[in-house]
This record gives sequence, structure tokens and C-alpha cells, in this order.
Amino acid sequence: MTAVDAVSIITAKRDGGELSDAQIDWVIDRFTKGEVADEQMSALAMAIVWRGMTRRETARWTAAMIASGSRMDFTDLPRPTVDKHSTGGVGDKITLPLAPLVAACGAAVPQLSGRGLGHTGGTLDKLESIPGWRADVSVERMREMLADPEIGAVVCAAGADLAPADKRLYALRDVTGTVESIPLIASSIMSKKIAEGTAALVLDVKVGTGAFMKSLADARELATAMVELGTDSGVRTVALLTSMDTPLGRTAGNALEVAESVEVLAGGGPADIVELTIALAREMVALAGLDVDPAAALADGRAMDHWRAMVKAQGGDPDAALPRARHTEVVRADRDGVLTRLDAMGVGIAAWRLGAGRARQGDPVQFGAGIEMHAKPGDSVTAGQPLLTLHSDTPEAFAGAQSALTAAIDIGDLDQKTAPPVLLDRIAR
Amino acid sequence: MTAVDAVSIITAKRDGGELSDAQIDWVIDRFTKGEVADEQMSALAMAIVWRGMTRRETARWTAAMIASGSRMDFTDLPRPTVDKHSTGGVGDKITLPLAPLVAACGAAVPQLSGRGLGHTGGTLDKLESIPGWRADVSVERMREMLADPEIGAVVCAAGADLAPADKRLYALRDVTGTVESIPLIASSIMSKKIAEGTAALVLDVKVGTGAFMKSLADARELATAMVELGTDSGVRTVALLTSMDTPLGRTAGNALEVAESVEVLAGGGPADIVELTIALAREMVALAGLDVDPAAALADGRAMDHWRAMVKAQGGDPDAALPRARHTEVVRADRDGVLTRLDAMGVGIAAWRLGAGRARQGDPVQFGAGIEMHAKPGDSVTAGQPLLTLHSDTPEAFAGAQSALTAAIDIGDLDQKTAPPVLLDRIAR
Repeated sequence: MTAVDAVSIITAKRDGGELSDAQIDWVIDRFTKGEVADEQMSALAMAIVWRGMTRRETARWTAAMIASGSRMDFTDLPRPTVDKHSTGGVGDKITLPLAPLVAACGAAVPQLSGRGLGHTGGTLDKLESIPGWRADVSVERMREMLADPEIGAVVCAAGADLAPADKRLYALRDVTGTVESIPLIASSIMSKKIAEGTAALVLDVKVGTGAFMKSLADARELATAMVELGTDSGVRTVALLTSMDTPLGRTAGNALEVAESVEVLAGGGPADIVELTIALAREMVALAGLDVDPAAALADGRAMDHWRAMVKAQGGDPDAALPRARHTEVVRADRDGVLTRLDAMGVGIAAWRLGAGRARQGDPVQFGAGIEMHAKPGDSVTAGQPLLTLHSDTPEAFAGAQSALTAAIDIGDLDQKTAPPVLLDRIAR
Repeated sequence: MTAVDAVSIITAKRDGGELSDAQIDWVIDRFTKGEVADEQMSALAMAIVWRGMTRRETARWTAAMIASGSRMDFTDLPRPTVDKHSTGGVGDKITLPLAPLVAACGAAVPQLSGRGLGHTGGTLDKLESIPGWRADVSVERMREMLADPEIGAVVCAAGADLAPADKRLYALRDVTGTVESIPLIASSIMSKKIAEGTAALVLDVKVGTGAFMKSLADARELATAMVELGTDSGVRTVALLTSMDTPLGRTAGNALEVAESVEVLAGGGPADIVELTIALAREMVALAGLDVDPAAALADGRAMDHWRAMVKAQGGDPDAALPRARHTEVVRADRDGVLTRLDAMGVGIAAWRLGAGRARQGDPVQFGAGIEMHAKPGDSVTAGQPLLTLHSDTPEAFAGAQSALTAAIDIGDLDQKTAPPVLLDRIAR
């Protein structure tokens, strides 16, 4: 017999105890209904940051958050569903080429995405820079797009009924210093992904200066927790640990990243983006049980066809000119040598200050704002050569962006030529 | 430079850091104004339960809570001020004989008290069982009573402007599982006592099954923290550690305790009450710099004169019959032997269930409800002899009270005769 009331649950966790299924179900249910007060849930969240949760507790917590809303079901689709989730990085536009590529391989990709907050951009913000494209898609229309053999993928906003307990809890954790807990992060991500109804999931867990997880050990712990949660809930789940010390690709900013994604779909684009897109696509295709080579589907234009169909299906014009910022400014190399460091966090903050991101939920973003990178770590540079082009509609933002970049760039001697690897590890059951 | 915003302050403490003066002042000030939200303060409180506070942090936290309201000043009184605070116990009616006794010795005793919640009674609830007695006294009237050589003591409710940050924080901690923190308990008690304007303070820190502090080590830590806080704030402070394994005296319940207090003032009453009253009075008189023997002032009726004057000054009739409960029930010894245990918590919960206490702030209490104890630990008893008489206006409460008492009473063999000591330790600078 364990006591089921808010104070008993908080003090049990505070004192290092393990919460029962009944306690977890009760507290999430009553919190969703507003009967467990925010001040009680934030105290419980801090106790969880302190004491952690066991695998059983985390699984139950996740299940309770899923049960707070409705769970989507795509099991009747003619094709296997598989999705990808990234924990967030600078220049991470991988979803844009990846979703149509995996759809082109024969899977259905139902991706519910979010908007950006802080130094990492949001997938919906990027796609909204395409004239006409809309993020809100009904469940019926989602199902039609996924079933359509010429589309097969949908990237859209989550409805209000998808894990509403997580929405409330996430907003609360954000203002109460309780974000930094692996069980809470894992259950927040996985509750949404499991509720979304995908049968399989590939996680891209970022590690490095521009990522939430700064160390490989922390990232591995988070990835393991999420793979366990997915598996325990009947979702086939694999995680790749990938580097986020430097931005992905050569752009950070909404329309700039869309243009780069289209380059990749056209068979070009930066090597790191192509490598990671193919690696994630191979994992997704394998989890979906399909025997198709994603590299071929990218090379022969099938992925591009699916991209165009997917954009059009949500009202976007894939041939329209993308927004461009009204002002640009160039950052140049101050010496000859090798670019040894281009820090992801510095670039992310600079892009955010230029207008690509938002400081508060609901703020607008500048679609054209952001940063083009003309050199990446490992590249030789000469003094005076352009390293970055900054884009913004608000030229007063350039000074703040420059100051975020000052400590983000290192140029070393010519013998230090090393391009860092992107793929770091793989976690599966 | 430390960051001064709610999330930075919460995460600094969460990560084991020491808060700066500016951070503490800011967070208490903004919390008082409602600008730091309850969910942020409760997360910070949980981080303080986890990480603790240094002596410097606790002193600053206390000062900030005092500064959230107004501080009373009795330095112009013709007599030295001294007060007592008990951390709360079952049957703890000591304030009732003590305040007039110390006033009779020549000190002024300005005691702001509270109402009871849970298993320990409140001093104001006890006094309110005296027909006509009122707890609300203006500051001007307080000053008159303290200056009056025939009264010299006042026990009344704290005004809303006395450490309002503590009032808000205490209510919040109560519902968020963040009561159990020595720096938070010490600063809560001491902010009110220092703001009350007393020049000296004796603390009665209870230890045992019926007390908040279950172990002597914890009680000593709390007492030391409070003595340090008082001393650092210019209030001469001494703490006595006293036993709360069994109730004090032979009654628990509002009017029952008033009657017992009057017995003590008349020169009788239980030995433990007399012993503790005299011990606390000696400490208070010494801190006030007076050379008077409290035992003499109790024996010769001067304390009783002050009691009568004090009760009358607040509208009470010291000669009126006290309220009596409508129903009684007797609990008898089930064997011959020695009463080896009469557990304070069990008796406290039983008295509370009989109607002597309240479950929620603002609930009424039954003035006549409670428990009379006909035997105390160390007393010989015979099978069938009355051990307790339960009093209640609501006879349906007897079953719940009996069930709280079942595990609270032990009768052992005749050779186990030991009356436990009341005074355990003394903490001073």
C-alpha cells in the first residue's frame, strides 16, 4: 500500500523512494486535469532531477503521459511506419531530405515536429519559409498523405491532444530549472513519439558543445533510456549518437537550410549532411523491414519527387523563390591556416540573434535570417577569405551575432588538418 | 557576477552552488510580490532541501524574509523584552503559565503565536477556549500591555505584515513536500521571532516521536542553526532540547490544557510541566538580565496575578467555566504492570481526530475535545484501571481516536519503572 496524494508522492521521491504505478498514474492524471498544482509538480520534478527514476518508473511515467491524450494508430496503412527524432542541433535540417527519402524507399513517415526555441531551429519554422506551406494537417489528411505512394511522408504540427501532460510539464520544467533530468527528457521525447503511432523509430542523439548533452557518456545514457522506453512500448527503436561540436552542413537558418536540403535531394550538398541522411535512412528502412538502398533512391531523383509531392500536399510551392534577408555581412579569416574549430553553440546563438530563432514561444522568426558557412573545420583558409556570411532583416543584430562568434572560431597551423567524424556510436537492444 | 533571474537561481542551487546576497534578496523580494511564481519557489525549495544552505545563506534568507514586511520595535519599553518559541509538541501548553510567570519576574513578553494544524495544538486555539478571549491585538495595545507592570505579557496573532514572505513560503512548502529542511525551518521560525522585536529568545526544540525532529542529532542541528541566526541578528538566543516522546503534562486539547495551566499557576499541576516552565523561565529571566527566581514568583501567586490580568486585557474572563465536550469515553489498562510507553504522536493524532485540531487552515476546532491522561510513563497501573479519558462533541470520532491509540500504549513488567527526563540538552553561543 502506497499513499496516493501529491505530498506523499513528492516526499517519497524526495526521500529516494521508487514511485508505484498507481502513484505515477495518479499524479500525471491529476496534473493534466489541473488538480495537482504546478508548484507541486515542479517540486516533484526537482526531486526527480535529484533522485532519478528507475527504468520501470520511467516507462510508467511515459505511458501515463501518453494516456493523458489520444494515441494515433497507423497500423492499417498499406506501408510500414517509421519516424526519426533528433534531440536538436545547429544546422540540423536532416528531416527535410530524410523524410521524403525514406518515403521513396517504401515506408510511411508520420513526423510530428515542433517550432524552435533558443539556439536550435525548429523543423516547422524551416518548412514554413517555403511560400504557401502550412504545418497544420488533420489526422485524416495525414493518413491520406502517408497512404499515397507518391507522397508517403508528412511533417506537421502535433495536435493539442497528443500527450497534453507532456506539454504542460515541459512548459513548467522550462521555467523551474528542472529540464536537466535524463528520465524526464527521455519520457518527454518518447511519450510524443509513441503517441504519434509510429511502429519504428530512429533517434539522432546529438553530443557536443551545441547539443543539450555535452558528453558522450550523458548522450549514451539518454539514448539507452529512450531505446529502452521505445522497446518496452512495442516501438522498434535504434539510436545513433552524432557529433554536434560544429554545425551540420554549411547553413543555419530557416530558408538557408531549406535551400541546402534541396541541394542534397538534387544529389549535391555538404558531405556531412549526405552522410548522416543516408545513415539515418538505412536505419529507418531496416527497422521498417524494407530491402531498399536509400543511396540509390537519393541518387536517382525519387527522393526529390517525394519532397516535391510532400511540399505541395501541404500547400507549398517547391519551385517558389525562398525568402532572403535584406542585409548581409561577411566574417573573414584573420590569418592563414586550418579552421580547427567552428563552435556549434556560437553559430547557433549568432543565427538566433540574427532573427532565425525566437526568444519566447509565439514570437515570429525571420525566414531569411541565418548564417552561411564558407569553411568547415578541417578546411584550409587564407587571411581575408570569407568564413561566414551573416543574413538578417535587422542590421542592428549584426553586432550581437559577431560577438557570439568571436570565441567560436579558431584557426590553427596547417598541419592540424582534421575533419571531425559525424557518427559516434549506435545504441540498439 | 552572478545571474539574477529565477531559473539561474534555481539551477545554481540545484547544482550545489552557494547563492549570493543579491540572488537571495531578489528571489525573496520578487516572490513576495508574486513575480517569482509559486512553481519556481517550490522548485527552489526542493533544491534547498537537497543541497542545503550555508550559515551565510541562511542568515541572508532570514533577513530577506524579515525585510519583506515590517519589523516591530520594543526597545523603548521600560522593561527588557524576552520571548520563547517551541517547535511544537503534544500537550505543550507551556506558554500559558510561562508568559505571565516571566512577566511577573519583570520582563516584557511579546509573544506572537499561531493556530494549530495537524497533530499539535496551537497556543491561540487554547486561549480562545477561554470565554471572551480574543487573539487580535493592535500594535499600540500590545505596547500598552507590555508596559503595564501588572500585565507585562501578550500572546496574540501575528499581523499580516510580519514576515509576509515567510507566510507565503510556509503555505507553499506545506503542499510541496519541502518542509523538511533545517535552513528553511530555522529561517521560517527566526524571521518571525526577530521581526517581532524581542531582544532575547529562548527556544524549546522538541525531540522525539511526537516532534518534528525525531533524533537528538537533528534537533541539535536545528537548535544550533536557530541560535546562530538569532545571535547574528542581535537577538540573544538560547535553546533547550526537550523530550517529546510522550505528551507534556496530563492533557492534550484546548480547554483541557488551559485548565491544567491554571493548576500550574495555582501551585499544582504535573511535575513535567512545572519543571519545564521553571527551566524556560530561568533562561528567559537570565537573558533579560533580571535577578529574580521564577520558582518564587510561581509559588507566591504573582504569576497567577499576571495570568488573570493578561487574560482580562484581551477580553477573557479568567473565572468563567471552560467549555467541556458533550461526550467522553474511557481507555483502560489491559493488564497489571508499568506504563512504559504513551506515544506522543499517537495521543496527538487521537486528540486531533477527537476534534481538538484542524485538518485545514480555517477549520473550526472543538474547544472541549481532547484527552486526559490518568497515567504517564513510569506509573504503575492495574488491569481495568482508566488510562485515558477521551473527550469529544462528535462521538463518531471515538473509533478513529481509539485506533490511533492502539499502538501508542505499552504496559510492561513492574521492574521497568522509569520516568523519562524532560530536559535533554542546552545550546548557547
